[in-house]
Order: sequence, then structure tokens, then C-alpha cells
Amino acid sequence: MRGTPRAIELTPVTEWEDGAVRAVDDYLAAEEPLEIRLGIGIAAHPLSVTMRTPGHDRELAAGFLWTEGLIDAPGQLASLRQPETGADGNVIEVELNGRILEPADVQRTFFAASSCGICGKASIDAVRVRGLRAPNRDFRVDPEMLCELPARLRAHQATFDRTGGLHAAALFDASGALVEVREDIGRHNAVDKIVGWALLAGKLPLAEHVLMVSGRGGFEIVQKALAAGIPVVASVSAPSSLAVKLAREMNLTLVGFLRGRRFVAYSGQERCLTAVP
Amino acid sequence: MRGTPRAIELTPVTEWEDGAVRAVDDYLAAEEPLEIRLGIGIAAHPLSVTMRTPGHDRELAAGFLWTEGLIDAPGQLASLRQPETGADGNVIEVELNGRILEPADVQRTFFAASSCGICGKASIDAVRVRGLRAPNRDFRVDPEMLCELPARLRAHQATFDRTGGLHAAALFDASGALVEVREDIGRHNAVDKIVGWALLAGKLPLAEHVLMVSGRGGFEIVQKALAAGIPVVASVSAPSSLAVKLAREMNLTLVGFLRGRRFVAYSGQERCLTAVP
Repeated sequence: MRGTPRAIELTPVTEWEDGAVRAVDDYLAAEEPLEIRLGIGIAAHPLSVTMRTPGHDRELAAGFLWTEGLIDAPGQLASLRQPETGADGNVIEVELNGRILEPADVQRTFFAASSCGICGKASIDAVRVRGLRAPNRDFRVDPEMLCELPARLRAHQATFDRTGGLHAAALFDASGALVEVREDIGRHNAVDKIVGWALLAGKLPLAEHVLMVSGRGGFEIVQKALAAGIPVVASVSAPSSLAVKLAREMNLTLVGFLRGRRFVAYSGQERCLTAVP
Repeated sequence: MRGTPRAIELTPVTEWEDGAVRAVDDYLAAEEPLEIRLGIGIAAHPLSVTMRTPGHDRELAAGFLWTEGLIDAPGQLASLRQPETGADGNVIEVELNGRILEPADVQRTFFAASSCGICGKASIDAVRVRGLRAPNRDFRVDPEMLCELPARLRAHQATFDRTGGLHAAALFDASGALVEVREDIGRHNAVDKIVGWALLAGKLPLAEHVLMVSGRGGFEIVQKALAAGIPVVASVSAPSSLAVKLAREMNLTLVGFLRGRRFVAYSGQERCLTAVP
């Protein structure tokens, strides 16, 4: 399982089919809470709890801090460690450099939300106001190349997801080559794992890349892509109205319904519908 | 649009198909933030921000308060109102009776999370510890009836969701008759709208009902169903490992992969795999 041994679990279940009942074993996508703590040991205080599929937890924590705007330079991340005892590996302790988050900041930033990816907003106004910059205007992708991406993602997922329950986020370069892919029960976590991978590898911003996500392209996916400097986001399904609004405002290229030899460009169409240089 | 005029939006987009480019109009699922405030007017303080599809906002707020355990008796809800000016209808003000939430409670309860439905947990332990009770042991459903539910849900959705981007939660009675359905860009919101509908209608607990959700049956869906006393949860797709663990612990019947004349029972199989009285 590519270093994520706990990403799936096998469990006995009961199948009903056309009146016949039988006991079978079934793979489940693992879902466990990850608590991100600021500080080390007894001085640590909780910053966030997210339900995620175990694996690539350091990347998830790093990506979460970055896409939620809690850090904005790689050097602010002093350390990321998983305590060796207790909590079943479901804790990450984070130390920051040159960035002091007071409890009041954390409270204000994270006071509440029941929706993926927007937990870091203290009011409706704040949902729309972020330190996000417009991505690389000069990046271009070939529409024929875009049409290849779903099959490339599926080819990878076929070897990985036996559960039918995992979302994927995949990063492609301008030629359509797969750079990295992460899978998680939460689509926003899969994106955070990709962004965290890039942050820890010194590759941010991802100014010449396409992010493809399974399922829908929601507001939080566009926001996380912008935080990472990604110019093109594609999905096989529909985006939401607010995702389209944010993508248009920031001139990110948002592609939906990417199936077969057809797609819909909701914003930034010049990156994918003009001749590639 | 059944009283939810802002649930979808029409927007101009660009379609690429096999090399041909054309401008078309496309429907988008509306996604806007809803801020739930405790108190009225200038005395109100923010409790939660959730990204939701506008419509049935009072039900959403009521259901959220209930399924997150912030209220546990219908009488605790004194009023729910949408201020008439400002915020584009994206605010709900809540007044409670006999239940005082101090800022510290709210901070502890809602300090953080980036995952749907578990925002109200202050630690990993708290994710698993809730004032939830095992649902009605004596409820039974016919497996043949379960097989009818996806088509009944789709028949309703066909008239509603032209966007391809909305999740649905539907409540059925023991005979398989559709009681209520709610749709939202967030599956957890669709469930909260159903639970809020029941709370405001004086119908909790939903001890003789089946909840069917589009997409996957995650931990938060099982948790919200338990909070409403619902004994059977069904989905067309896979549940997560933690959803199955919680369902088994609480003896809720969790059905997945409900497609055609087949389904998988992950827990509580006695409710759906024994003869109906």
C-alpha cells in the first residue's frame, strides 16, 4: 500500500443478493481522526482535528497549515513529528519558527465550521477574503492532454483503491505526466497531502501544474489550489457556484465534466482553449 | 425550485468537445456560507460557518445544533430567525432556552476541524464520545423494499438536480414511502436539514425510518443519524471504516452498495435480513 498500511481495512460483512444471503469479506477505506497540535509534548495545544485516511500524515499537516494560511513561508515550519506513544499515530505535533499563533488567533481562525476546507474562517466576510494570489497567467495546457488525465488517474487508482470509498487528488505537469497522487476519504485532505508534499519538497508554488480531483470541484478545492499557486484545476464532475466565483475572481482555470473527449471550462479558458506554444 | 430559489444558478461557460469550442449556459449547484449566530442582533456571537446550498436554512441550523449535541431537547430552541437585512440571507440567529453556551464551551466544542460533521470535537477522544443512544432494536425492513429506495430517490432528484453537483438525504418510512428529501452541496448538510425538519415538526426521534444518502456513508452521517434516533442508514456507495465501527458499537443498521438487487450490510443486519413481522 505504498507506505500507507492502514489506508484500507478488511472486515466481515453480510451480502444480500436477489434474496440470497452470504458472509463475505470487504475492504473499507480507513477513516481515523488526526489531531494537529501546536508545540511539543505537554506544552502542545490542539489546533485542528480532521477525519482522514491514515498515511502521509506529515504532508497532510503541512498542507493544512499552508492552505489554511497559518503559515506562508516554508521556513516557518520548524518541525513536524508523530509522537511515538499513545493516540495510535493519530497525532502530529507542529513547531513553528517566526510565526506565533496565540490561542486567540487560533480561536478566531478556527472557531467553527461544519464544512470541509473552510474551518479557518471567522465570519462570512472572511470566507471570501484570503491572502490568495492569481496563479501563473502564462501557463498553457493542450485540451487533448486534459482528456487523457482521467484515464491516467484511474489507472493509478485501480491499483490502490479497492474500497470504492477513497477520493484522489493528482498533480500533473504541463505534458500530462503524473507527478504525485494522494488518496483520502476526504477530497480536501487528498489536496492538502499534495500541497504538503510540495511544501516539504521545496516545490511551492506549483505554477506549471494541473490538479485533478475525483468528484466535485468545490470552493475549498479551488481555494487550496490557489494557496499552492496551481493554475488549472480539473474534475470529472460539477463545480459549485462559489468555486466558479472564486476561480473567476482569481483567474484560475476551472475545468469540470472532464469525460471522454469533452469538458466544460468555467473560468480561465485561455489557458486550455488557445494554441499551446 | 420547491421554495429554494437560490439552490441553482445559471452561468455562461465554454464547452470543448472533440476539438470544437462553443459557449453554452450551465446550471451550477449554489454554494454559499451560512453563519449560525447565538443571540439576536448586536448581542449575537458567531457559532459556526458552514458552506451550504441556500434553502431550508432554519432546518439546517436546527439540525446542526441537534446533531452536534448543542441542544438535546426540542424546548431548548427558543427561536430561529434570518435577519431581514444584510448578509444576503446567509445568517441565522438562534436563541436558546435553558441551555447556556459560554464562549469557552463554544471554543472547546468548535475549536477546529477541516472535515465535515466533526467540527464539534475538542480532541480525538471526543470524536468517539458522544451522548448517543442505540436506535430502535425492534425496527425491521424488508430487503426487497430497500432495493426500491435508490430509484425512488433518483426519481425525485431528476426533477430537482440539474447541476450534477448536489447530494441528497432522503427519509423513508418502514413501508419504503418517501417522507422527506433534502439536497445540498454538502451531504452532511442534507442530513442536518432532514434532522432539523423533524426537530421543528416535533417528529424526533425518527425511530421507524430509513435514511438514504447519495454518495458514501461516512462517520459523520452515522453520527448524525444516531443523534436523530434513525435505526437504518443506506447508501449506494461504500462506508468508511470509522462509520462501520460506530454503527457496530451503537447497533445501527448500515447498508452500503445498494444497487440493483444487491446490497451489503455492514452492521445491524438483523433489522434487514430477517423476516418482516
